[in-house]
Amino acid sequence: MNYKIMTADEAANLIQNGSNCAVSGFTPAGALKAIPIALAKRAEAEHAAGRPFAINIVSGASTGPSCDGVLAKAKAVNFRTPYQSNADLRAGINANEIKFVDMHLSMAPQFMNYGFLGKFDWAIVEAADVSPDGEILLTTSVGVSPTGLKLADKILIELNEYHPKALLGFHDIYETVNPPHRREIPIYSVKDKIGRPTVKVDPSKIVGIVKTNKPDEVGGFKPNDPITDKIGQNVADFLANEVKAGRIPSSFLPIQSGVGNIANAVLGAMGGHPDIPKFCMYSEVLQDSVVDLISSGNIEFASATSLTVTPEKVQEIYNNIEFFKTKIVLRPQEISNNPEVARRIGIVSINTAIEADLFGNINSSHIMGKSLMNGIGGSGDFTRAAYVSIYTTPSVAKNGAISSIVPLVSHCDHNEHSVNIIITEFGVADLRCKSPVERAQIVIDNCAHPEYREMLKDYLKSVARGHTPQTLAKAFSMHEAFVNLGDMRKASFK
Amino acid sequence: MNYKIMTADEAANLIQNGSNCAVSGFTPAGALKAIPIALAKRAEAEHAAGRPFAINIVSGASTGPSCDGVLAKAKAVNFRTPYQSNADLRAGINANEIKFVDMHLSMAPQFMNYGFLGKFDWAIVEAADVSPDGEILLTTSVGVSPTGLKLADKILIELNEYHPKALLGFHDIYETVNPPHRREIPIYSVKDKIGRPTVKVDPSKIVGIVKTNKPDEVGGFKPNDPITDKIGQNVADFLANEVKAGRIPSSFLPIQSGVGNIANAVLGAMGGHPDIPKFCMYSEVLQDSVVDLISSGNIEFASATSLTVTPEKVQEIYNNIEFFKTKIVLRPQEISNNPEVARRIGIVSINTAIEADLFGNINSSHIMGKSLMNGIGGSGDFTRAAYVSIYTTPSVAKNGAISSIVPLVSHCDHNEHSVNIIITEFGVADLRCKSPVERAQIVIDNCAHPEYREMLKDYLKSVARGHTPQTLAKAFSMHEAFVNLGDMRKASFK
Repeated sequence: MNYKIMTADEAANLIQNGSNCAVSGFTPAGALKAIPIALAKRAEAEHAAGRPFAINIVSGASTGPSCDGVLAKAKAVNFRTPYQSNADLRAGINANEIKFVDMHLSMAPQFMNYGFLGKFDWAIVEAADVSPDGEILLTTSVGVSPTGLKLADKILIELNEYHPKALLGFHDIYETVNPPHRREIPIYSVKDKIGRPTVKVDPSKIVGIVKTNKPDEVGGFKPNDPITDKIGQNVADFLANEVKAGRIPSSFLPIQSGVGNIANAVLGAMGGHPDIPKFCMYSEVLQDSVVDLISSGNIEFASATSLTVTPEKVQEIYNNIEFFKTKIVLRPQEISNNPEVARRIGIVSINTAIEADLFGNINSSHIMGKSLMNGIGGSGDFTRAAYVSIYTTPSVAKNGAISSIVPLVSHCDHNEHSVNIIITEFGVADLRCKSPVERAQIVIDNCAHPEYREMLKDYLKSVARGHTPQTLAKAFSMHEAFVNLGDMRKASFK
Repeated sequence: MNYKIMTADEAANLIQNGSNCAVSGFTPAGALKAIPIALAKRAEAEHAAGRPFAINIVSGASTGPSCDGVLAKAKAVNFRTPYQSNADLRAGINANEIKFVDMHLSMAPQFMNYGFLGKFDWAIVEAADVSPDGEILLTTSVGVSPTGLKLADKILIELNEYHPKALLGFHDIYETVNPPHRREIPIYSVKDKIGRPTVKVDPSKIVGIVKTNKPDEVGGFKPNDPITDKIGQNVADFLANEVKAGRIPSSFLPIQSGVGNIANAVLGAMGGHPDIPKFCMYSEVLQDSVVDLISSGNIEFASATSLTVTPEKVQEIYNNIEFFKTKIVLRPQEISNNPEVARRIGIVSINTAIEADLFGNINSSHIMGKSLMNGIGGSGDFTRAAYVSIYTTPSVAKNGAISSIVPLVSHCDHNEHSVNIIITEFGVADLRCKSPVERAQIVIDNCAHPEYREMLKDYLKSVARGHTPQTLAKAFSMHEAFVNLGDMRKASFK
C-alpha cells in the first residue's frame, strides 16, 4: 500500500463540519501537532464566511495547545470528552459554548465500543511508523487510539519523525471485546504484556499521512516546595507504616499516582524512604520523576498509557531505549486504568483533591461547585478499585483564603464510601472503618490548616445530629464566604 | 469430630464484651435467629449490673429483627458495617450511639481479608448442615460468611433444621486471595460455577452448635401501584429500545436489580415486555418476583448472594429444589457484587435512588443529607461497573412535599460520571454523553413531577453560569423548605 502523503491543510480540508473525530493524545504526549492547527485556520475561514464549522472530539484525556488549544480558540469544538486541561477549552466549557462530558477515562473506549458516542468519521493519530499493511506504531501515548482506529471510517496519520522507529516494543496493544463475549484481562503483574506492539488497521482506511517533526508539548511542573515535600513525606511515612503493621504486604504493592508537583513530591519521598522497597507503578501517566526513579533503581517497572515527560527526559529515554523498554510499557487507557486489573493486583492509588470534606468526600473537578477545572480523569477508575485509596491536597489555597477541608464538598467526584485516606502537609486522616463523626474529628485534627480548625469544629458543634452531622443551610457557608467576600476565613459558625 | 451442641444462652455466654464478630445474613436471609436474642438478654443483664457490654458486628448486609433488631434495642452494638435496614439500629446510628460504616458491599470481605477491620474473634453463622470434618452448608445467603469463617478464631453455628440438606449444590463458594497473588475471577457467564458447594473450616474452631428451626424473617414488599408499574414499564421500554438501536446486544445482557417494590415492578414489566428476550440476572438479592419469573421461563438463570424470599416462596423452591438448583446460584458477596465480573459480562444495573439531581448525581443513603436511611449497599459496586447504569425513583415522596429531583443531592453516593439513566414514572432521562446543561433540561422535562418543573427551571435560570450551573447558596433551598416548612413546594427561585 502506498499511502498518500499530504500537507496538514490538505488533511484538514477532508474533515467536514460536524465530524466525529477520535484523536490521539493522553496529556500532550502523543497528541496531534499539525492537523488541528490547519483545521483551526479552516474553521476561522469558514466562520468568517458565515458558515458553521465545529467538530466533536474524543481523545484519551487532555491534549496539547496545538490540538485543544488552537481548536478551542478557533471555536471549532462542538463536543469534547473525556478530559481536558487547556485554558481556552476550559473557558469555552464554562461559558457553556462547548459541550463537555467529564468521563472516567477507562470508560471512554467502552462508550466508543458500545456505540454510546455515535459513529466515528475520523481517527486522527500521531504515529512513529506505519507499515504498508497497516501496522501503526504509536508514539508517547496510547489512550483511545486503538479503539478510534478500529471504529472510524477513515484514518489520518501524523507521522512524527521526532520519535524513533525503535519505539517498537514500547506499547502493549490489547483491546477488550464487548459483552457477552468479553474474557478476563490477563494481567497479573504490572510487567505482564498481553497484546501487540502496534495497532493493526485496514490500510485502505488510511486516507492520508502528514509528516511532522515535533516534540510533545509537555512543560515542566512547578518545582517541589516545603508544602508538597511535607505531603510527600506524609504519604511515604503512611505507606511504610502500613507495611510495618502488616496491612500492606512486605513485597509492597503497585502505585498509581496522579499528575503534578504533589505527585512528583510523593514519588520522590517514596523513592527516598528507607522502609519502602523498590516498587512498581500501575498508573495512567508517567512523569519525569518516574524516569529518574527508574534510573536510580527505586522503581522496578512502570505501566501507563502515557509517557508525559519533558523533551529532555524523552531524549534520555530514547538514548537508552532498549533499557527503558524493559522498564516501561504503554497500554490502551481501557487497560492502564481498568478497575479489574487495579483491584486484582491491589494498587495503592494516590490522587490530588481540589477539596475534601469532613466525611471523606472528594472534589476533583469543580471550583466552587460550578466551574470545571480539568475533570475527573482516571482518579475514579483507580480510587474505586484500590487496595487503599489516598487523596492528597495542601490544606489551604490562595494564601489561606480557601481551606481545602470544608464541611461539604461543592462537587462530589469520589465519595466517603470509596475514599480511605486524606493527607495534607499537616498529617494523615485514616478514614477506614471510621464512622462519619469519627472521620470529621480526625480530618480536622490531622489535616485541616490550624487557622481553620476552630471554624470547622464550630460547624460540627452547630449542626443537626445524624449519622452524618450536617445542616444543609450552612454546609456551603465557607464557600459562600469565599465567593462573596473573597476569603473563607470570613465564615463563622459561632 | 463431635461438635458440642449447646443452647443459645450457653453460646451467648462465650462471647465477650468488645468482641469482633462476623455474622451470617445478607438481608434477613440466612441471618442468625437465636444466639443474638440470647446475647441481647445477656447484654441487658450486664448493663443492669452496671457493666458495659457491646460487640462489633460485620455481616453481609442487613440482617433480621432477631439479629440487628434485638441487639440494637439492647444497646449491645458498638460498631456495625457494611449495611443495615433495621429501625432500632438506624435510630442508634443516627443518634451517634452506634458507630456505623456504610461500605460498598463487595469491599467488606476485602477489608476483612486485608486486616482493615481488625482481628475477628468470632464467626457466627447459620447453616443447613455441618460435616464432622468441617464442611459447612450455608442456607439462603452467603454474604461474608466464608471470609468470616476463615478469619475468625472461633466459630459458633446455628444449625437451622428449617432448611433441607438438599440445599447442597445451591452455593458456589469461591474466595479471592490477597494481592499480589490474586488471579482473575473465572466467571464469563452468569451460569459459571467456579467454587465449592460448602465452606470448609478447621473443625476444631467450631466451639458450639445451636439448633434452630425457623424461617427467614423476610416480609412481603408493598404491592405494586400505578406509579411503580409506570416506572417498571419505562425501564422495560428503555431497554427494549436500546436493543432495537443496537446499543444492547440482541442476546440481551444480565440484569442487576435492587430490592423493593420498584424492583419488583421493573422485573415484572421486563418479564411481560414482548421485545425483551428471556434474560439472566447477576445481582446481589433475589426476591419473590425472580422466582416467579424463573418458573414462568422469563428468567433463564439468576446469580446472587442472597435468596431474600418469603417463607411461602422458599417452600416453593424447596418443593422443587433440583429444578431450582439448575436456575439459581448463591455466591459470596465479593463475587456476586464484584466489579470485575460485572464489567466483563456487561450487566445492566437498576437501582433505586432516594433523590437525583439535575446533573445526574444520586443519593442512595441519606435523608436530608444527615440521617442514614439504609446505606449504599451494592449499588456502587454495580453502577460503577455497569454496561449501562439506571436509577429509578418515583418523582415525588410524602404526597408531593418532597421532589426526588433536586438541584443538588444532599448526599452523593453515585456521581454524574457513573450514572447513565434516570427513570421516574414520567419518563427516561438518558444522560449518556450529555453535558451538565443538557442533562438538567432532560431531567426536568422527562423525570421531574410537573408540579416541580417550573421551580427547577427557575433554579437553572437563577444560578451562576459554569460547566455545572450552580449557586451553592441556593442549591439546598428545596431541602431547607422541607426541613423548615414541611414542603419543598414552598421553595422559590423567582
